Amino acid sequence: MDRVDSTATGRELHRFAAELYPICRSITGDGIRQTLKIIQQRIPLEIVEVPSGTSVFDWTVPKEWNIRDGYIKDSSGRRVVDFLKCNLHVLNYSAPIHAKMPLSEIRPHLFSIPAHPDWIPYRTSYYKEDWGFCLSHNQLLALPEGDYEVCIDSTLADGSLSYGECFLPGQSSDEILISCHACHPSLANDNLSGLTVATALARILVECNANFHYSYRFLFIPGTIGAITWLARNRDAAARIRHGMVLTCIGDKARFHYKKSRRGDAEIDRAAAHVLSHLTEAPEILEFSPYGYDERQYCSPGFDLAVGCLMRSVWGSFPEYHTSADNLNFIEPKCLAESLRVCATILDVLENNGRYRNLSPFCEPQLGRRGLYRTTGGDSIANEINARLWLLNLSDGENSLLDIAERSRLPFETILEAADLLRENSLLELAPEAKGREEVPAKVAHKNVVPSS
Amino acid sequence: MDRVDSTATGRELHRFAAELYPICRSITGDGIRQTLKIIQQRIPLEIVEVPSGTSVFDWTVPKEWNIRDGYIKDSSGRRVVDFLKCNLHVLNYSAPIHAKMPLSEIRPHLFSIPAHPDWIPYRTSYYKEDWGFCLSHNQLLALPEGDYEVCIDSTLADGSLSYGECFLPGQSSDEILISCHACHPSLANDNLSGLTVATALARILVECNANFHYSYRFLFIPGTIGAITWLARNRDAAARIRHGMVLTCIGDKARFHYKKSRRGDAEIDRAAAHVLSHLTEAPEILEFSPYGYDERQYCSPGFDLAVGCLMRSVWGSFPEYHTSADNLNFIEPKCLAESLRVCATILDVLENNGRYRNLSPFCEPQLGRRGLYRTTGGDSIANEINARLWLLNLSDGENSLLDIAERSRLPFETILEAADLLRENSLLELAPEAKGREEVPAKVAHKNVVPSS
Amino acid sequence: MDRVDSTATGRELHRFAAELYPICRSITGDGIRQTLKIIQQRIPLEIVEVPSGTSVFDWTVPKEWNIRDGYIKDSSGRRVVDFLKCNLHVLNYSAPIHAKMPLSEIRPHLFSIPAHPDWIPYRTSYYKEDWGFCLSHNQLLALPEGDYEVCIDSTLADGSLSYGECFLPGQSSDEILISCHACHPSLANDNLSGLTVATALARILVECNANFHYSYRFLFIPGTIGAITWLARNRDAAARIRHGMVLTCIGDKARFHYKKSRRGDAEIDRAAAHVLSHLTEAPEILEFSPYGYDERQYCSPGFDLAVGCLMRSVWGSFPEYHTSADNLNFIEPKCLAESLRVCATILDVLENNGRYRNLSPFCEPQLGRRGLYRTTGGDSIANEINARLWLLNLSDGENSLLDIAERSRLPFETILEAADLLRENSLLELAPEAKGREEVPAKVAHKNVVPSS
Repeated sequence: MDRVDSTATGRELHRFAAELYPICRSITGDGIRQTLKIIQQRIPLEIVEVPSGTSVFDWTVPKEWNIRDGYIKDSSGRRVVDFLKCNLHVLNYSAPIHAKMPLSEIRPHLFSIPAHPDWIPYRTSYYKEDWGFCLSHNQLLALPEGDYEVCIDSTLADGSLSYGECFLPGQSSDEILISCHACHPSLANDNLSGLTVATALARILVECNANFHYSYRFLFIPGTIGAITWLARNRDAAARIRHGMVLTCIGDKARFHYKKSRRGDAEIDRAAAHVLSHLTEAPEILEFSPYGYDERQYCSPGFDLAVGCLMRSVWGSFPEYHTSADNLNFIEPKCLAESLRVCATILDVLENNGRYRNLSPFCEPQLGRRGLYRTTGGDSIANEINARLWLLNLSDGENSLLDIAERSRLPFETILEAADLLRENSLLELAPEAKGREEVPAKVAHKNVVPSS
Repeated sequence: MDRVDSTATGRELHRFAAELYPICRSITGDGIRQTLKIIQQRIPLEIVEVPSGTSVFDWTVPKEWNIRDGYIKDSSGRRVVDFLKCNLHVLNYSAPIHAKMPLSEIRPHLFSIPAHPDWIPYRTSYYKEDWGFCLSHNQLLALPEGDYEVCIDSTLADGSLSYGECFLPGQSSDEILISCHACHPSLANDNLSGLTVATALARILVECNANFHYSYRFLFIPGTIGAITWLARNRDAAARIRHGMVLTCIGDKARFHYKKSRRGDAEIDRAAAHVLSHLTEAPEILEFSPYGYDERQYCSPGFDLAVGCLMRSVWGSFPEYHTSADNLNFIEPKCLAESLRVCATILDVLENNGRYRNLSPFCEPQLGRRGLYRTTGGDSIANEINARLWLLNLSDGENSLLDIAERSRLPFETILEAADLLRENSLLELAPEAKGREEVPAKVAHKNVVPSS
Repeated sequence: MDRVDSTATGRELHRFAAELYPICRSITGDGIRQTLKIIQQRIPLEIVEVPSGTSVFDWTVPKEWNIRDGYIKDSSGRRVVDFLKCNLHVLNYSAPIHAKMPLSEIRPHLFSIPAHPDWIPYRTSYYKEDWGFCLSHNQLLALPEGDYEVCIDSTLADGSLSYGECFLPGQSSDEILISCHACHPSLANDNLSGLTVATALARILVECNANFHYSYRFLFIPGTIGAITWLARNRDAAARIRHGMVLTCIGDKARFHYKKSRRGDAEIDRAAAHVLSHLTEAPEILEFSPYGYDERQYCSPGFDLAVGCLMRSVWGSFPEYHTSADNLNFIEPKCLAESLRVCATILDVLENNGRYRNLSPFCEPQLGRRGLYRTTGGDSIANEINARLWLLNLSDGENSLLDIAERSRLPFETILEAADLLRENSLLELAPEAKGREEVPAKVAHKNVVPSS
């Protein structure tokens, strides 16, 4: 198992992001399809195609969009805006156009960011047929008035919406959902970081080859319409989701942010907060709000799933968001690796969060004669012994290991190790309703698998 | 409806206070009776007379007090203390007296405030028969020893206690109570501010001529004994009170204070806190305590009504309290107008605080095709759109609009406007138990009725 | 009752500590036995002997340890470490040894504190048979290499474990437990402070000769094994314990710390926090943790008793802890007296914490005609009157006096005095379920019994 080290993990994640970066993805079309096929090389992924026009709840799967080229040429025939140089230059989902017109007529179709005059914005028009170009403000200012040739060589035609699904069955039919959107073109933090970390996490689970308690479902989907499509077609599976996270913007070096599920006190919310507080610096836990990523859909009132959203920088709050500055330099190998470790550790908490019963509940059992205590009295005790005392005290069948970790302020891992030791010593047993979970064998974030950075 | 502007509203409130200021009110007698008649010129007010000697719970309606004159004359016959100059000079409810006596005998009957030597204190002796004079400390210090003529030309005789009641029926028999005391003589903030704002609020409701959900009851009563008398005689009506506020000290320029009801988490408590936090600067929410104004009676354990107390300065905590410095200069037109606006906005919250059901609860409905979303993606969204998302997300029949306003930190009005829009678009309906409230038509604090100052 | 003053109380407590200080106590043996006999001179104490080898839950009562002498002699026959000078010098529960050996062989058996080179540590080895010496680090550094004679003239043999129990029956079979450990040798704050204050508290109860509501049980026991032994032999009595405190480290001048019971919101937890906040400076309330003193056993999940721990300095957090510096100079008469007062006041709260019913619950009763209010209105009211209003308002049979004291932020004593007055005036009665408690006559901390320091 000792085949990866943290540096290597980070480098591999970044290399994977770099491979996916140039592809012009959108919510449908060959860009996302090609992306899913590359992911399929790493993990068992079913690629699902849903035809244009399919009704999904209140929505309809749109026409498929593909693009070959797009430019604005000046009167000399020079490309002054060129899709082939950066796929952000074309308003995503632009309808085809090929015409000559004066700059004054083009202007309403141009998007730039005056505050960051060197950056190209990322803009979309999925559901209102339109065309447009995004360009740096300096580019825009440099355009003289006059006639230009505008061309967007795209197609909007019946086709299908593509998404990828990786299902890894566990002992239980209860599921953990990891979801990320795969519809953004050349943007790194949003959302190649989520894509690459989710892929690596699924791969670790596959490679562990372990008999996990939960079944796992990884979704690589176009934002909003993809989540809606999946939920509309998988209401039974949705009903089996016990915990879930949307992964996005987890490659930059900002501190972590976790946005709680609509429920606000779900096990995933507490597990994420616990892990972040022990593994990372100054994490911030955000209350649920209905705007954001696909947790919007998973947490809609008809579903109300326990799905939160893990981020480093929060979408919309960093200047590089939805611009060409969210590039491969903006995400860092060690940050990607740390995010992977956080995710794996959260899964470990969920996998192992049983309730136990102290088999010697009247007074403390004599740990000393079992070699579970210090021998010379009068001095203070170590965290490991403290964890045993907490477990014995709180294991009345009501408190989960996470409850105990929270109350004791000890890391879950320390509590779990103590629980294993006390079980070996017949001082603790799993509470009856958790009996089926006795044989959870693996730690996803085991130090040899996902080394700390 | 555009007939008032904020400046005019404030000026009219202050003018009304000035009209009432000179009257020597007490808990019974012609002063309060005359005050109620002036209020009656503005709103439909029933003036109720309850005979002296009537038992009201543990209390008895006292004899009626009336006063024509009161003075202390020095040996030269000059009035050194003169009721006709300021009605605070006589200890309120003083028994009649006419005698000559040396200053040394008068001293135990004199009240002054050494810390504010120019102000006359306001003191009362309702339930212990006594006589006395209040005067500025400088006046007191200037009195030479010697004989004086003291005269209080008052009567304490069987009569009645007077209070005013304005009842405005709504669709529901559930009531909202607005209560203020009307027993203080020439004091402006305490309590002409409450009197005038309550009158204006009732008048707005009358002029709205709207089919309000709640029935409204405005009480203009003598403090303590008046509330006790009303409650003793109206136990059925008291049982129909769902929300209420005591209004007092709301004319000065201090920030707002709202004292919560005994329950502490009543809808009125949350509505008041919400409105104050959005409309005013740095409001302070105070826990309930059993000392204060007539919320003491409404919140006694036998009633335990959801009645709080709205103030700007808190009684007892400002130096001018219960002194001649609480005069017409101490209250300001724009502060009175702002208090009126706060009250009206609180009523709007209560009137419109329904629970809704999202009719498209599985995933977000497609707001874009209904013109309820922005069209170009990639940028942030406005509060109006955010309010729609919050409503759709939380409208599961359990959360009221106020719940949603609190959780989203958006103003209730923004949430309400979004709810109206979503209902028009068939995306939301009132929860079944609230169906009767579908047609609440009016906003009490509509900007054309009570303009913001 | 006016026979003690605070200075005298403190001096007496310190004198008692000084009497017990020289005795070499351990968890068994003549030291603790002699200590209990001295306590027996002051209060009715049953001394219980439990034979070695008795099974107590998961533990076994160990062999009895006694010691006459212990030393290390250098080659010249001089005692370089001498038990007779300070009983901390011998590792507590050391097995007998008499041998010559080079310093290098003795070293693993020597304990010192390099950070405090003049202090002798206190170390124990109860359950692993071993021998050893504790000495100051300077002593250790001064020992030249070479051969030494080591002698510990101790016995480890079948005998018994001794503990003391003082039971004072009250009206109810419900019990209040006061527990302290009595097994530490020459250490003053830990735990002669607890021993002496517990003894004085029991003596006050005896001398009050009052018909208390609760029965009281005082335990003077060896730490851990003593609590376990008592609990194993007294499960019926344990089931009757309603409130309890472990007393330890309450003689030094640090601010107070109270560690809450496992339940965290038990009446004792709230009573202790309330009393400390009103009687002492900047007390700190600590959450429960399963490490500490005998609350570990009382709060084990099989018992889960409402037992907290009262301390001034917290064990382990002050440098003198478990060293020779925790001597008679480290505890102060006035601190011991203050701790006694705090304990007595907490008992007063528990004894008197009834629930009442306002007999005039509709509006305020007219306090004025009963002489329970001020007579001249218009000014503020005193705490005594405020307490009456709070009691009348909250006495709906649900709120205890402590609930009311907490919500009003008034001292319990002020609330209790107001309750007595209102009962005398037939305005309040004990709620039906508390009727049996009408005649609690005495205040343990009555100012004439335990004067404030």
